[in-house]
Amino acid sequence: MGSSSWEEFFAVHLPPTDFEDNRTLLKEFCDRHDQYGNKIALVTSGGTTVPLEHNTVRFVDNFSAGTRGSASAEYFLEQGYAVIFMHRQKSLEPFTRHFSGQKLFDMLDIQERGPNTTITVKPDSVDVLAPVLSRYKAAHAAGAVLHVAFTSVSEYFWLLRAACECLARLGPRALLYLAAAVSDFYIPKDRVPTHKMQSGSGAPVIQLQLVPKMLAPLVSLWVPAAYVVSFKLETDDSLLVPKARAALDKYKHKMVVANLLQTRHHRVILVSPETTQEIVLTREEVHAVYQKYDDSFILFDLESASSKGEF
Amino acid sequence: MGSSSWEEFFAVHLPPTDFEDNRTLLKEFCDRHDQYGNKIALVTSGGTTVPLEHNTVRFVDNFSAGTRGSASAEYFLEQGYAVIFMHRQKSLEPFTRHFSGQKLFDMLDIQERGPNTTITVKPDSVDVLAPVLSRYKAAHAAGAVLHVAFTSVSEYFWLLRAACECLARLGPRALLYLAAAVSDFYIPKDRVPTHKMQSGSGAPVIQLQLVPKMLAPLVSLWVPAAYVVSFKLETDDSLLVPKARAALDKYKHKMVVANLLQTRHHRVILVSPETTQEIVLTREEVHAVYQKYDDSFILFDLESASSKGEF
Repeated sequence: MGSSSWEEFFAVHLPPTDFEDNRTLLKEFCDRHDQYGNKIALVTSGGTTVPLEHNTVRFVDNFSAGTRGSASAEYFLEQGYAVIFMHRQKSLEPFTRHFSGQKLFDMLDIQERGPNTTITVKPDSVDVLAPVLSRYKAAHAAGAVLHVAFTSVSEYFWLLRAACECLARLGPRALLYLAAAVSDFYIPKDRVPTHKMQSGSGAPVIQLQLVPKMLAPLVSLWVPAAYVVSFKLETDDSLLVPKARAALDKYKHKMVVANLLQTRHHRVILVSPETTQEIVLTREEVHAVYQKYDDSFILFDLESASSKGEF
Repeated sequence: MGSSSWEEFFAVHLPPTDFEDNRTLLKEFCDRHDQYGNKIALVTSGGTTVPLEHNTVRFVDNFSAGTRGSASAEYFLEQGYAVIFMHRQKSLEPFTRHFSGQKLFDMLDIQERGPNTTITVKPDSVDVLAPVLSRYKAAHAAGAVLHVAFTSVSEYFWLLRAACECLARLGPRALLYLAAAVSDFYIPKDRVPTHKMQSGSGAPVIQLQLVPKMLAPLVSLWVPAAYVVSFKLETDDSLLVPKARAALDKYKHKMVVANLLQTRHHRVILVSPETTQEIVLTREEVHAVYQKYDDSFILFDLESASSKGEF
């Protein structure tokens, strides 16, 4: 079974309920930064879901905690970009990703003095928290970051196209960094059962359909002047570079960041139309990056790429 | 296609890599509280995954943020239970669930005075945070709560059985509150592809198999004296009570909490072998519960049940 066209996908899947609110937010954000001549990076992050039932008890999900996307968003902010952080609901977010709820709670001390209760961060935790918190507050005070959230693959596509419509006017000052793990497959709306599948009726067979490749209209129609970076995650090393290069040939964008699931924390291959650049971190470098940025290896990749003038 | 037996499931699926560590933690926790004659509630929370590939790029997931389980864990602690909180990795946890990372960050003020940086919670946020933080600290200081995390359905079953083995000696002082959203279906290990499915080769068909009903050996063999509460989430109202009652007849446990996906925040039906009790919150009650406990309606259910001596 082939994939449907992207026009068909948007015709069949209605926009999410909060779509107009998000579109307004995107438009205001892009207009404001465009006025100042700022650069904007759209960072997509986390996995998308494919509902198996209309009422959505079960869904197919893609593996992604959002580590790379949320870490990269911090880096783009540091480099002076305004950032649209388009992320899977409840996945990791820039800055807060460094501390889980329990980790933050354990950093706090309560001082109860009658009616004057105060809560402070323990002195030995201030060193760790203060630099991250400062950067968080600076980014938000400057209005430099906008969060928009998706869950299903159709919500993701609606938001992505809306963001592109706002970013188009920025021309080459727009950068798209498509790190989200987007489903390749979905279940056509007319084949999704309304009620929860009953286990009593035997194990079901799920017939999936290919998702249309949105990178095609995105590059050729929606944001033709933008710097578009896509990602390729594979588990078979022999397919990695051939598939990255095939994607560049087909979609005509600027870069594919290719990596293997097994080694993605210390190895990526940056594939551009002219070059193939492998970056492997040594054990010491991984340790140094982790020390500085937690587990955000992609920061290192971008610094390397950037020093070569690719960004 | 029928389901495999529970013995077969454990024979085919190896224990997770950190299994022995978790088993040791469970055993120490149960032994300690058993010595003091304490009651222990095992609360399971969040959804389980079914990997579609060995390297797990994609998986089928069950819808659950862990709201009900994490809220209920707080309630059991308040009622003097020690709590084993067995939850999906990264799902909501007791106490911290009230505040997202951004919400906590926005509560914090940095005071930079040269080398002496301090971070404090803003005075107007102390009122909201202090009661939750106090209860969190009290529970942890008393060693009253143990967190163990799962992701896949096989990890869940291995942990569940290990917890039961430790809880068995507590007899009726053990309560099992099985709120996790467990997959009904899985893909047998020998049919899971090693590498990422290639979208070029056409849309795949996923053939699922029924998961064995672990409630059967759990009630009859593993913890025969415990108070076992299971949950039923349906989308079709007409199936709700019949399916709850059928489960009680089949597995011989103490209670099914039945609810519809669409109305689960304000309506549940408590089904025991002798009674069927519907609890519907009015708009005012929902508001009052949300004010006090955030979005944890189940607390109200349990208080009602408890006042009737069912717990």
